[in-house]
Amino acid sequence: MRILLVGAGGVGAAFCSIAVRRDFFDTVVVADYDQNRARRAAEAVADPRFVATRLDASSADAVAEAVRAHRITHVLNAVDPRFVMPIFTGALDGGADYLDMAMSLSSPHPDRPYELPGVKLGDEQFALADRWRQAGRLALVGIGVEPGLSDVFARYAADHLFSEIDELGTRDGSNLTVDGYEFAPSFSIWTTIEECLNPPVIWEADRGWYTTEPFSEPEVFDFPEGIGPVECVNVEHEEVLLMPRWVECKRVTFKYGLGEEFIGVLKTLHKLGLDRTEKVKVGPVEVSPRDVVAACLPDPAGLGPRMRGKTCAGLWVTGTGRDGNPRSTYLYHVVDNEWSMAEYGHQCVVWQTAINPVVALELLARGS
Amino acid sequence: MRILLVGAGGVGAAFCSIAVRRDFFDTVVVADYDQNRARRAAEAVADPRFVATRLDASSADAVAEAVRAHRITHVLNAVDPRFVMPIFTGALDGGADYLDMAMSLSSPHPDRPYELPGVKLGDEQFALADRWRQAGRLALVGIGVEPGLSDVFARYAADHLFSEIDELGTRDGSNLTVDGYEFAPSFSIWTTIEECLNPPVIWEADRGWYTTEPFSEPEVFDFPEGIGPVECVNVEHEEVLLMPRWVECKRVTFKYGLGEEFIGVLKTLHKLGLDRTEKVKVGPVEVSPRDVVAACLPDPAGLGPRMRGKTCAGLWVTGTGRDGNPRSTYLYHVVDNEWSMAEYGHQCVVWQTAINPVVALELLARGS
Repeated sequence: MRILLVGAGGVGAAFCSIAVRRDFFDTVVVADYDQNRARRAAEAVADPRFVATRLDASSADAVAEAVRAHRITHVLNAVDPRFVMPIFTGALDGGADYLDMAMSLSSPHPDRPYELPGVKLGDEQFALADRWRQAGRLALVGIGVEPGLSDVFARYAADHLFSEIDELGTRDGSNLTVDGYEFAPSFSIWTTIEECLNPPVIWEADRGWYTTEPFSEPEVFDFPEGIGPVECVNVEHEEVLLMPRWVECKRVTFKYGLGEEFIGVLKTLHKLGLDRTEKVKVGPVEVSPRDVVAACLPDPAGLGPRMRGKTCAGLWVTGTGRDGNPRSTYLYHVVDNEWSMAEYGHQCVVWQTAINPVVALELLARGS
Repeated sequence: MRILLVGAGGVGAAFCSIAVRRDFFDTVVVADYDQNRARRAAEAVADPRFVATRLDASSADAVAEAVRAHRITHVLNAVDPRFVMPIFTGALDGGADYLDMAMSLSSPHPDRPYELPGVKLGDEQFALADRWRQAGRLALVGIGVEPGLSDVFARYAADHLFSEIDELGTRDGSNLTVDGYEFAPSFSIWTTIEECLNPPVIWEADRGWYTTEPFSEPEVFDFPEGIGPVECVNVEHEEVLLMPRWVECKRVTFKYGLGEEFIGVLKTLHKLGLDRTEKVKVGPVEVSPRDVVAACLPDPAGLGPRMRGKTCAGLWVTGTGRDGNPRSTYLYHVVDNEWSMAEYGHQCVVWQTAINPVVALELLARGS
């Protein structure tokens, strides 16, 4: 197995640190727009199987060319979801299998954004499913932690725990804090704004996919292993687009444990138009307000040593158990930041994302 | 009387519309960094006494030169408080009297910003008081509505209503809304951030000036004429630096009726560092985050026709009345936006500010 890792940011670098301990692959070509960043991630694991290269992920041709040049068998996309489509099509054109951890972006319904979906997450990718089938290639989309591990939980619940499922409800929360900062998100604010301010999507068996206003259906979910109760709200997330295609159930939701403070911040950014990506004129220059917000906050990639607490990804399943009785089970995965920093040198949120494609690639390599 | 009006923004243009109805002056030279803006304000009043010119208010020499060139007797400063000092010293150097509506800016105490004042509002101006005295010239600082009318209320209360004053508490509030906008401040957001996030200053007879955390001592004040209760908090404002110099009392405060929503917005901007004026790097450009916030919001100068409601400036005085009994009186001035737009074509907040220097200049012209 010869892997092209596209993106040497937080998740990409964590992938290298986890994969280096395994023997299922021959090479990982670590590619980034910033060649130094690629080199740092490759050198950090000090293993000759890892080599660095520069790659412009916005060019499908450049991705296909890299696949051919390095005789790549599997492309792992670990960059910002804005670049899903060129990497996805570049992998196919180059002749490699493909994995990612976030799907192609949505756009809201032009007239009724808070009732109906427009272009849904992943729609652009699913539209090309036949081309992948014809080429006899695998595209394993959404195989991080959420989406990814959460979808595996859904399959497991349907196959082993439930006879009938009412709701597959992904619930994500943490009690992370960052020393020395009053406010410091542990994940890309750009992506968090995208996820949280897009109309949340819900699926119901008798209604299909529909959308709501942002931050709808607030609920306090009590997370395990000492994290405790966190306010969760509906957000747009891939699981809702993936699970109902393969798992029988009545309803699929995704709620993110943003907490009251973070919800307030996001609402304010939206109210002031600071979530916008279109550039505004500021004196002699033009900038995207959302990029300014990101520039004002500390880079989450560097926050690991100052973070404390645990992050939890999981799926809350309700329905009827195998014994015919009502059942409610939360299947989850918790990572303590102190542990992931000490053991791998990566903060818990990116570590928890990156472990899943390592497992998936190893299962593929072993033909399991 | 020959007036140099520096600044043809909202307040400057409203000054022209109010002054044009009076006959106490010979000329108003309307000066702005943007010559077209100066011309528009001068032409709007269609009176040959008003002429337009271009002026860089950041240059004291340019201000002095304009004073001499137009044989100016009185300079009225109607620009952003960042430019107070060059206009103030330029007027003196050129040989004119001077009026403004906001004083030179403060800087926080380097070590204990929320306990002690550093450089206070107006300190730089008061430091030059002797030079004005020696030149035999008048500098009438802070003669808008707040500071200005509020200070006149304090004098009136001391001279006519009270035998002993406990507190001189300026209270400013409104019920203004802007049609079509979820959030649209009716006054410069740049200045509002400056006022509200600087440490609020309070004066007490036995303690002198001291500062607190922003948004301290929240209080719901019930404003008159249908405005109703609004949440008010301490902010830094000139009255607290002016009143105790000339009016005997025990305590001086300024509370601004920001309302809960606006307080939340300002706290969030501060938490995210978006209130900062120092530039940050955003990709290839550098911008001040506070300028980006201002650029994302509608220009308050153009909101008049969409605004509804009333604004209230006033002074809440408590103490002992002339009859020896406890007394509590709110002296106030309310402007209805519908009226100011219909009568003058200017929104109520800038109209209420601009009327005061017109009155002051007329009193000076008549030698009252």
